[in-house]
Amino acid sequence: MLRNTFNNEIASLLAEDNWLLAQEEYDRQENLNWESRFGLVSGYMSSRGSEICATSRPTLPATYIHGIFDRSEAFMRELANMPDWAKLKVYVNRQPIGVETEGLEDYLRALDMKNGLLASHYTVSDASGARIRVESLKLLSRAHPQCGLIRLYLTPLDGDAHFELENLIDGTVANFIDYPRFRTRHFEITENGKGKLGVYMECHTRDFKTPVGIGACVEGEGISSRAIKPYGEVACEFFDLHAKKGQTVRVDKFAAIATGRDTDGVKWRVTRLLEEVTTRGADAEIKMHIDKYQELWRMADLEIEGDDKMQKAMRFNIFHLMSTPNPYDDRVNIGPKLMHGEEYGGHAYWDTELFCLPFFTWVFPKIARNLVNYRGHLLDAARRNARDNGYLGAKYPWESADTGDEECPSWSVEYDGTCTRCYVADYEHHVTSAVAFGLVDYVRVTGDRSLFEEFGLELLLETARFWSSRMVWSDKKQAYEILQVTGPDEWHEPVDNNYYTNRMAVWNIHTAVDELKAMQKSRPDLAAAICQKIALTDDEINLWLDRAAKIYLPDTTGVIEQFEGYFDIPDAVITQWDDKAMPIMPESCVGKERKDHPILKQADVVMLMKLLPDELSLEVQRLNYDYYEKRTLHRSSLSPSAHAQVGVQLGLDERAYQYLERSSYVDIDNNQRNLREGLHAASIGGTWQAIVMGYCGMHLDKEGELAFSPKLPEQWSKVRFRINWRGKDKLVTIEDNKATVSDLA
Amino acid sequence: MLRNTFNNEIASLLAEDNWLLAQEEYDRQENLNWESRFGLVSGYMSSRGSEICATSRPTLPATYIHGIFDRSEAFMRELANMPDWAKLKVYVNRQPIGVETEGLEDYLRALDMKNGLLASHYTVSDASGARIRVESLKLLSRAHPQCGLIRLYLTPLDGDAHFELENLIDGTVANFIDYPRFRTRHFEITENGKGKLGVYMECHTRDFKTPVGIGACVEGEGISSRAIKPYGEVACEFFDLHAKKGQTVRVDKFAAIATGRDTDGVKWRVTRLLEEVTTRGADAEIKMHIDKYQELWRMADLEIEGDDKMQKAMRFNIFHLMSTPNPYDDRVNIGPKLMHGEEYGGHAYWDTELFCLPFFTWVFPKIARNLVNYRGHLLDAARRNARDNGYLGAKYPWESADTGDEECPSWSVEYDGTCTRCYVADYEHHVTSAVAFGLVDYVRVTGDRSLFEEFGLELLLETARFWSSRMVWSDKKQAYEILQVTGPDEWHEPVDNNYYTNRMAVWNIHTAVDELKAMQKSRPDLAAAICQKIALTDDEINLWLDRAAKIYLPDTTGVIEQFEGYFDIPDAVITQWDDKAMPIMPESCVGKERKDHPILKQADVVMLMKLLPDELSLEVQRLNYDYYEKRTLHRSSLSPSAHAQVGVQLGLDERAYQYLERSSYVDIDNNQRNLREGLHAASIGGTWQAIVMGYCGMHLDKEGELAFSPKLPEQWSKVRFRINWRGKDKLVTIEDNKATVSDLA
Repeated sequence: MLRNTFNNEIASLLAEDNWLLAQEEYDRQENLNWESRFGLVSGYMSSRGSEICATSRPTLPATYIHGIFDRSEAFMRELANMPDWAKLKVYVNRQPIGVETEGLEDYLRALDMKNGLLASHYTVSDASGARIRVESLKLLSRAHPQCGLIRLYLTPLDGDAHFELENLIDGTVANFIDYPRFRTRHFEITENGKGKLGVYMECHTRDFKTPVGIGACVEGEGISSRAIKPYGEVACEFFDLHAKKGQTVRVDKFAAIATGRDTDGVKWRVTRLLEEVTTRGADAEIKMHIDKYQELWRMADLEIEGDDKMQKAMRFNIFHLMSTPNPYDDRVNIGPKLMHGEEYGGHAYWDTELFCLPFFTWVFPKIARNLVNYRGHLLDAARRNARDNGYLGAKYPWESADTGDEECPSWSVEYDGTCTRCYVADYEHHVTSAVAFGLVDYVRVTGDRSLFEEFGLELLLETARFWSSRMVWSDKKQAYEILQVTGPDEWHEPVDNNYYTNRMAVWNIHTAVDELKAMQKSRPDLAAAICQKIALTDDEINLWLDRAAKIYLPDTTGVIEQFEGYFDIPDAVITQWDDKAMPIMPESCVGKERKDHPILKQADVVMLMKLLPDELSLEVQRLNYDYYEKRTLHRSSLSPSAHAQVGVQLGLDERAYQYLERSSYVDIDNNQRNLREGLHAASIGGTWQAIVMGYCGMHLDKEGELAFSPKLPEQWSKVRFRINWRGKDKLVTIEDNKATVSDLA
Repeated sequence: MLRNTFNNEIASLLAEDNWLLAQEEYDRQENLNWESRFGLVSGYMSSRGSEICATSRPTLPATYIHGIFDRSEAFMRELANMPDWAKLKVYVNRQPIGVETEGLEDYLRALDMKNGLLASHYTVSDASGARIRVESLKLLSRAHPQCGLIRLYLTPLDGDAHFELENLIDGTVANFIDYPRFRTRHFEITENGKGKLGVYMECHTRDFKTPVGIGACVEGEGISSRAIKPYGEVACEFFDLHAKKGQTVRVDKFAAIATGRDTDGVKWRVTRLLEEVTTRGADAEIKMHIDKYQELWRMADLEIEGDDKMQKAMRFNIFHLMSTPNPYDDRVNIGPKLMHGEEYGGHAYWDTELFCLPFFTWVFPKIARNLVNYRGHLLDAARRNARDNGYLGAKYPWESADTGDEECPSWSVEYDGTCTRCYVADYEHHVTSAVAFGLVDYVRVTGDRSLFEEFGLELLLETARFWSSRMVWSDKKQAYEILQVTGPDEWHEPVDNNYYTNRMAVWNIHTAVDELKAMQKSRPDLAAAICQKIALTDDEINLWLDRAAKIYLPDTTGVIEQFEGYFDIPDAVITQWDDKAMPIMPESCVGKERKDHPILKQADVVMLMKLLPDELSLEVQRLNYDYYEKRTLHRSSLSPSAHAQVGVQLGLDERAYQYLERSSYVDIDNNQRNLREGLHAASIGGTWQAIVMGYCGMHLDKEGELAFSPKLPEQWSKVRFRINWRGKDKLVTIEDNKATVSDLA
């Protein structure tokens, strides 16, 4: 058991090995990847898994706080990397001690996914060759999500030792600090010095001047010579600790963060939080934190018997996904990298509704409601976005931060400094139907129709209105067209009449009208008020329906043309795969412009099959799956999970399972090779769907009742998972390809 | 020839190998030592030899500016480590390139002592394995001492490369940054952004608010995408450079510094300096810089034929010593570590007058005059210091910064945080006679009696007055005593009647009275005015002379008792030496308090023999040398050079030569093991004296005329050096133990 390699205090807290993700060797090349894997999120804030003693390199420490965005010189408002409290520097004989110190031995870091703890130990030698044992525990409290805690244990093995320590808050961080072309500092430090307890740093974001206060204090038997010694942009409390040979000394570091989003008095709030957490004490806080994780896992666990690797990977995936959203704030969302890295600015994409949201809808409906509410709060911004682009209704931005403005930049800058016009925001409109789809799915699963009454119906109608306004009549085709869009496959942009986009536009209009009719029956007063508010008349509704009925759609009896003209592109199919079983671009396509070859970045027609599985016959679905699979490079981490989920439901077991592995292990194995920038939220959520909706076949039947069509892989003897079904916690067991639903204890 | 391993542009500038100090292997353990050895000083400012691409570690970059002191939370006003302009970061494929990058090969750094250039080259591999050649040249312009220049050459060896670069001014530095107990930030940044040329950072010291402006700009063919991107406390100009395979691209970085000590408009001045240096261009600046070093070496070179190691070491020593003082500013001095490290705060100690000053007095008398003037400017502070300690006259502080206040702290803090009362400032009074001695030596050698008229006589009289007031009458001894002092040997403190201190007090009084009498003859008006200014009467002068006559001095016919009671300490002698031929503390003394054993830290009686060689007969000197050598541990780097100089003049050739080696190689070999904190100024100056005054026997005879008593080591066939003798540049050649003095071409 790995936990037995720790001291008793840590060992008594850690879970058994199958709940631990362990890094057993320190490898500088892998540092940034482990920092992503070992990132912790309290629901309020995150802290990447940088080494506590801060001697590793390269390192990209990151502290993100939900809703704290800033643009400054960046291309977009992005989650601001805030001062890093998660550092405790240790010096022995004037030398900093850490993983890069000479004589590193017995290195282990382990993420305890059951209890939400990051534990580490190693032994290093000081300048005189005397060995020092360093052990640590880190957590971001689930019980008090604005608080973090580090326990550091130091043991001199070969003689007495004197330790000099620094309790730091490091304000020298920036976004993209190691990428100077994009490096942006998103805050200004306004105070750096002494707090009522320990050190205190206050800053504000540069654009909106949102204040953020960070306090940190240390406790430990034998601490002496405390001195507050801020310097530059580093808050620092210096202190001494003696230890006799073989004696373990412990330091507890408590940190607390508050922002102007929570309180008018951030320093007052930080002080109170620190007073409270230190009064409770570290032992109590750890216990409360672990209890909270037990509550989470009671609902979130997905047990797979017969496949230990998949089991651990899914717990890893679920751990990070469930830890990230803020249960107490419905004005924030989830970024594509969760809060574990700096790519994509922490923005809400379609990834939220179509990949991440279903997990929460089924397992944590209150969090799902928050994520849906986020879009509701930004409905006015979406209306503004539609108007500014010449459309009616509400058009959700491709990338959404706090304001709801479009954050997707119009220019991308290449590594060599060349600028390329980026058309994603201009053309990739299908996010708007995704927002509507996620909302409707949430209501259908949870039965929480109050959402429609609050803002949901209005959102559905306004997005339907957008799609109607997005269509143009073609005399030639005698049909409505959606021209110049980018579908899910971003390598063909822009195209006309992308099947996915057109079909989802129709879905959006029909669903909006259906739900309006339903409310006209159940709450006619409210339905009328909503129509009045948005000046919606029956004439306009009829116009939408007419357009939806007359929209151009390709022939769907055979292979469906992804967009108009796709079949005219000289064909090519994938015939080679790399050592990670990833498809390789066909020779004939290499060097061509993307628009001139048929290869897809990611699932497009197959993505529609995932969302609307009853739209096409299974035969047609298989035909299309076969066709597009041969032409899809899966360069987006969103693609494999869709292929897994659709594949297994089509009976394509072996191929589906390859995609499931690829998707489930995306961060464990770093198979997209960009783990340093954070985890892959959509892949994580999509994998959960692939198992639960795909392999376990959970779905709503035509009456909206819970139904299952399980098809477990041979090597899986049993799968168990939990859902909240219409307000009740249920345990679902899939065994012998039969589903049993029982009340959850 | 090492220079031939560089590209043609660098090779054409570098000297032959015997003028180069080369680091041929990159070794992380040795980084901080090489940073000291490779520190450059323009006379105005210094820059330690940190790697330009800033990837080495550990690293202690330092930028000191003469006269820019600050105390803040430190124990004393110390030279403030200012923002570091000497960095140019390079990224290839998003990875910083530098000495810690994978695949380091062909590493070489070489200090060209002839031309004042620091050159380096190495090859590293980028993330893809493609090799990049990096070459650089750094200088702090001797022609325009407020300007620095870096030339960086980049050559991709295996394919085209795109470089992302950053022209940085790093304001995150602090004094003792890696020693948190003492870490102090001495400035506040008041501006960080764009200059008229490139980036500009302005800060001020924290106590006195002295403004310091630093500007830096880059030039180079092909530079594109320039963007000023300050973040936090780092000024940053980002830019791109492309290079084809095998093509070398060059970047010239120019930097300029101005302070409130020079100008009321630091930003204006920095802008002008940058405009001027970029208008001249790097080639012209390098040429002017090298020409200036040729001028310096014309006077400063010390040629030793027959001993290449000693030759190189002496050029290394002289290079750093002559480069450090400011030729244009007589309110600044020289610190014990020169400007190459952070120990001792850059303060003037007795090291200046007795160890460093003679080199300048003989070789660069204008600089010597500046160093002496520094004490003159601080005469009022010395009077204040005497008064505050209950004495009359002028008492110079043991450690002197810009204000002349005593900067030697009353408490020292040990590694484990314990505080010890430090009595050095209370008891070590002999610095006052050293100041007088250096001044008088300067006048006697240079003949510049104007010094006496300006402030020198007043200084002599006031220091004499201090010594008189420092004495107390002993009825028992029927003599005046100086009680409770520390002599040069700091391991016995405090003691009564330290022979060195008492004897130098007498010297100070006699010399002051002699020079007053001389001026009463040559300039009676001025002599009277001086006496009137300091209210000095004949009665008081007689009192001084009476005290000097009646001071307690030990028996000087045999072994002289270092201080009263020294002979009562249980005796012990050194019988063992370590592998570096350094004496080892006798067993019987280990664990004893220093006052309870007879072992000396450094030359004390021998030091007096160095200063007043005619005071004692050669026989008595040999007796004392023998006696004290056996009891001296040379734990101060000041000690070996004194033993070398005195030893050779006493005919103790072999022993003297060991001390000479130890002293001359102190920084080349790091034999005091504290090179990381800077070079050893007193050892450097003392070694020059040991060779020139000791081995070459240069001295003033009784008539004050130039005289020589050479005793070259056997392996030296010839020594040549240059002096300025009463205004004329002379070449002194020592060969066959005869001296020839000729006019210097």
